[in-house]
Amino acid sequence: MSRDGGRLFTPRTPRIVAARRLQRRREREQSGRFLAEGPQAVREAVAAGAVIELFGTVAALDRYAALAADAEQVSAVTDEALEALADTVQPQGLVAVCRQVDIGLREALAKRPRLIAVAADIRDPGNAGTILRTADAAGAGAVVFAGDAVDPYNGKCVRASAGSLFHVDVVRDRAPDAVLDALRAAGVQVLAATGHGADDLDDLLDAGELARPTAWLFGSEAHGLPADLLAAADRRVRVPIHGAAESLNLAAAAAVCLYASARALR
Amino acid sequence: MSRDGGRLFTPRTPRIVAARRLQRRREREQSGRFLAEGPQAVREAVAAGAVIELFGTVAALDRYAALAADAEQVSAVTDEALEALADTVQPQGLVAVCRQVDIGLREALAKRPRLIAVAADIRDPGNAGTILRTADAAGAGAVVFAGDAVDPYNGKCVRASAGSLFHVDVVRDRAPDAVLDALRAAGVQVLAATGHGADDLDDLLDAGELARPTAWLFGSEAHGLPADLLAAADRRVRVPIHGAAESLNLAAAAAVCLYASARALR
Repeated sequence: MSRDGGRLFTPRTPRIVAARRLQRRREREQSGRFLAEGPQAVREAVAAGAVIELFGTVAALDRYAALAADAEQVSAVTDEALEALADTVQPQGLVAVCRQVDIGLREALAKRPRLIAVAADIRDPGNAGTILRTADAAGAGAVVFAGDAVDPYNGKCVRASAGSLFHVDVVRDRAPDAVLDALRAAGVQVLAATGHGADDLDDLLDAGELARPTAWLFGSEAHGLPADLLAAADRRVRVPIHGAAESLNLAAAAAVCLYASARALR
Repeated sequence: MSRDGGRLFTPRTPRIVAARRLQRRREREQSGRFLAEGPQAVREAVAAGAVIELFGTVAALDRYAALAADAEQVSAVTDEALEALADTVQPQGLVAVCRQVDIGLREALAKRPRLIAVAADIRDPGNAGTILRTADAAGAGAVVFAGDAVDPYNGKCVRASAGSLFHVDVVRDRAPDAVLDALRAAGVQVLAATGHGADDLDDLLDAGELARPTAWLFGSEAHGLPADLLAAADRRVRVPIHGAAESLNLAAAAAVCLYASARALR
């Protein structure tokens, strides 16, 4: 690591001003950078070789000295500067400027992942980040943000992913139909998760249908999957509802589907 | 239904002022009442016989006329009065004052539920509501709010439950150890969901251990289950982590556990 002199960066220091702009989606897209905050996310970002510059308060750089030692560029900042960079009230004194880590769909599929999650048009960053985290835990190799989905580098999504943004291959693709074609060309079955699907998840598990490379499609909580994607999937699958609930929420449904696949793919 | 004259209630009408106080926990606890907003929650509340008074804008009472016809007491209110009552920006014009629906643990266990969720010390109302919804979907008969848990009648919890608050038996009990004793006396096995549990969820499912009446204990996202509850459970169960994620979030872990039980109990 190299540290800048003894002077603490303030909210007006140009590098802080520039980093702060990464709170805006347009700036993230133009620069190919984003912010990760808190020791857990920063640790994963460092491990992934994604950190360009680490900003920390003096207390935090002291407390997380081993972590800071692994970052290439480290700058000590005032509490006010840290606060200006952070999205949350308690980022525990650390915010890192990271390079975006997504790769192309072709590259991700070349690694032959057996489990993939496709977030189609998912707008809520908390849901998107939770799906990243759950897909990672279930052993998915890739998560595809398709269509008009949230920016995976949105601060809330980064936080909800709890580091999984740096563990799985993240792919961004605006054309969901091309994603489906590529998945099928790679020999991956495409299952659409939908409340009224014709296939029951437990039945598919019993029949051994989940023991093959699988991509799960998840739509937005408000609107579900668009009709063309539903029609284009190999199967439309429902999580069985045993009680009186109308449906599961998106993150819970994704967890149940991804873990059914994980069970079959053990 | 009986409607109050032609006069619209305003934010200053005493019954609106009184209803509005139910946004505070203390007032809910003293009165045994709470607020449910939006047509879905109100519909479930009416079906459960829990609605004391339904407030709606003129447009909403017109749009949801059939629903309003099923409520005993209906009052038309100004947009401002509705806004003052509602927690969300878009409650779609309806807010109902409901009587609290929770029952005692003994009464709930007398119905011999085969699946129960226990939320111990869960403080986040969104998580608590999601667990209610997921437990309902998985076929649970009861959800117990134990220890220092969030008020299940908190507006955010009511919304996240998406009506399930009115479908399953809700129990509130401040003494988790007494809850465990009662569960065991009723022949229900107690499984603590915990990231580092000795038992793997899939192994228990394979071994047929989930095909018996089961109560799942879930702790807070921040602190997990307290040590005494972990020790008192019959088993400590982990959801297997196949990837690099450190853990699942609470709602996802609860979904996977409850649906593993649902699969075994089919």
